Amino acid sequence: MAQRFNFTIHATDGKARTGSISMLRGEIRTPAFMPVGTAATVKAMKPESVRATGADIILGNTYHLMLRPGAERVAKLGGLHSFMNWPRPILTDSGGYQVMSLSELRKLTEQGVEFRSHIDGSKHMLTPERSMEVQRLLGSDIVMAFDECPRADQPREVIARSMELSMRWARRSRDGFDSGEDHASRAALFGIQQGALHEDLRRISADKLTEIGFDGYAVGGLAVGEGQEAMFATLDFAPDMLPQDKPRYLMGVGKPDDLVGAVERGIDMFDCVLPTRSGRNGQAFTWTGPLNLRNARHAEDTGPLCERCTCATCATYSRAYLHHLVKSGEILGAMLLTEHNLSFYQQLMQAMRDAIGQGRFAAFAADFRRDYQP
Amino acid sequence: MAQRFNFTIHATDGKARTGSISMLRGEIRTPAFMPVGTAATVKAMKPESVRATGADIILGNTYHLMLRPGAERVAKLGGLHSFMNWPRPILTDSGGYQVMSLSELRKLTEQGVEFRSHIDGSKHMLTPERSMEVQRLLGSDIVMAFDECPRADQPREVIARSMELSMRWARRSRDGFDSGEDHASRAALFGIQQGALHEDLRRISADKLTEIGFDGYAVGGLAVGEGQEAMFATLDFAPDMLPQDKPRYLMGVGKPDDLVGAVERGIDMFDCVLPTRSGRNGQAFTWTGPLNLRNARHAEDTGPLCERCTCATCATYSRAYLHHLVKSGEILGAMLLTEHNLSFYQQLMQAMRDAIGQGRFAAFAADFRRDYQP
Repeated sequence: MAQRFNFTIHATDGKARTGSISMLRGEIRTPAFMPVGTAATVKAMKPESVRATGADIILGNTYHLMLRPGAERVAKLGGLHSFMNWPRPILTDSGGYQVMSLSELRKLTEQGVEFRSHIDGSKHMLTPERSMEVQRLLGSDIVMAFDECPRADQPREVIARSMELSMRWARRSRDGFDSGEDHASRAALFGIQQGALHEDLRRISADKLTEIGFDGYAVGGLAVGEGQEAMFATLDFAPDMLPQDKPRYLMGVGKPDDLVGAVERGIDMFDCVLPTRSGRNGQAFTWTGPLNLRNARHAEDTGPLCERCTCATCATYSRAYLHHLVKSGEILGAMLLTEHNLSFYQQLMQAMRDAIGQGRFAAFAADFRRDYQP
Repeated sequence: MAQRFNFTIHATDGKARTGSISMLRGEIRTPAFMPVGTAATVKAMKPESVRATGADIILGNTYHLMLRPGAERVAKLGGLHSFMNWPRPILTDSGGYQVMSLSELRKLTEQGVEFRSHIDGSKHMLTPERSMEVQRLLGSDIVMAFDECPRADQPREVIARSMELSMRWARRSRDGFDSGEDHASRAALFGIQQGALHEDLRRISADKLTEIGFDGYAVGGLAVGEGQEAMFATLDFAPDMLPQDKPRYLMGVGKPDDLVGAVERGIDMFDCVLPTRSGRNGQAFTWTGPLNLRNARHAEDTGPLCERCTCATCATYSRAYLHHLVKSGEILGAMLLTEHNLSFYQQLMQAMRDAIGQGRFAAFAADFRRDYQP
């Protein structure tokens, strides 16, 4: 029977886990990579092509969608799934990260964040309650608590104050989410651990979130410039503080080698703009590392992007053709590289799921690191 | 048995004709619309999607391809069909039009045109012989004679001198094409009638071309700013001067109402950037006329672009969603509108072929003009 939210761990290998999340709109295999569909589209991709790469769930950005086309308008038009023709699960972020990085003239208070749209300068307010309402209007399947995400390099007391604020907002997010009863009966709510690189702050945050209770828990506040070494050092302890039986989501990560290292440390879900953005910038990911298709060495190379890749781009087009498209600024270059990159990411996730299921994740990770040049 | 080039007229209705061209790489149903694939890609479309719209043949631009990636390079990589994954017929223009409109520092002599690339300033020479060689290196199925295309509003003596030059170049094109024996045994060569709006010059041009002998004949020098009325006035006589049993190709045309009026006057083939370029600019063609998707009146319209259209965009997406994509500058907007526009153009061609075959073209054209607001 279809369920609102059920996470089952099928196998573990070290700290790595593989499983599945059952939701009303479909199943999500974990570890999962969620392509980013910022403005109700995974850029340069049709939704059926996104699905064909192996994606079970995509991410939508609350900040962008509330400004354009507007949450009330999306609701009026039947919700985000119908609007963009993606019938499967959608996770929406809370808007907290983008409002601090993209908006203009923002003002942060206990209540929330007042800001001006980067699109048209219009004035808006995001609070935990309004974020829950926007995500409900969008019809989100996995709703993220509203939080503040500070830069990791700020003084400890700034990080601590911000984390405490995010925990109060987590409580208000829980209440706001629960008050939308019909939506709450169909969707899930995730809390977000903060505390940057500080183990004690991460512990306080995890305890607070667990006390409130969520369907899943994100590790927030990483991938904000601290570097892979510091991120991994934090992931050595932060996921362990979160409930074992709930999915753990590392927000905004990352490069292929980030994903392998994070799965190794117990992460179940990821989102990142990297495969889509890189695809539009002429960069392709392969099992041996990223390739820059602008490079003249590809101009007469009749081989595929990646020998081991199973995607349609690699089956059909040469590096020489992709080089030509990228150099010519052709949209088809963005389309084909995005499709390859998303497919590569999903093949990487499937390879990790298989390796964990077969108890050989350490060997997989060692092989990956041997071949992959970041 | 597969043939190099065979044009069969299946039915006529007034001056309108419907038929098919058999070539080694496939059949072309006429009247035919050829999507433009300037730089070895029909912009924002995968080749299999171009085919799915109903296109039997596409056009490639000699000027662009000789500059980037270069004709010798395309030949080395196996030819244009393999390079861009379009296994069906390709018509290439001669480069004559683009070299005069896009290049820099050009110098026109009896020999040809010397110019500098608009991409990198490199120096090149296009002559009838080099144009034939470039089109052979690309692996073109329908090769166009190298001509000069003057603006129609120039003095009669300028038009006359230009036409005479183009006829001498047509002879040299024929000889150049025939000298590439292996390619000539698999491809076809079309001549191009010039003479702008002057009936006597068009007659001289047609007679000269017919004397040389070509597989098909283009009406050139129109759609260069003269307006639909003057174009139709010229098409009232120009196509009749060309051999009845060969296909007639109106270059660079046009809007849906241009196509209907030109088929009515005996034209069999068309190419135009309009459906693709418009698609990237937020414009969609429908049976009631063009729509600007930027217009705010579409913002909450849950209906399709076009009720009668059978394309995937119309089956799947609302005007509201397309409006959102166009306003947001999303690549998917260009992709979906291009696909719709190309599909609409092919549906229009199919409707014309059906109407001619059933002897009701006049009624079709009258209905079209009643409903279509240009």
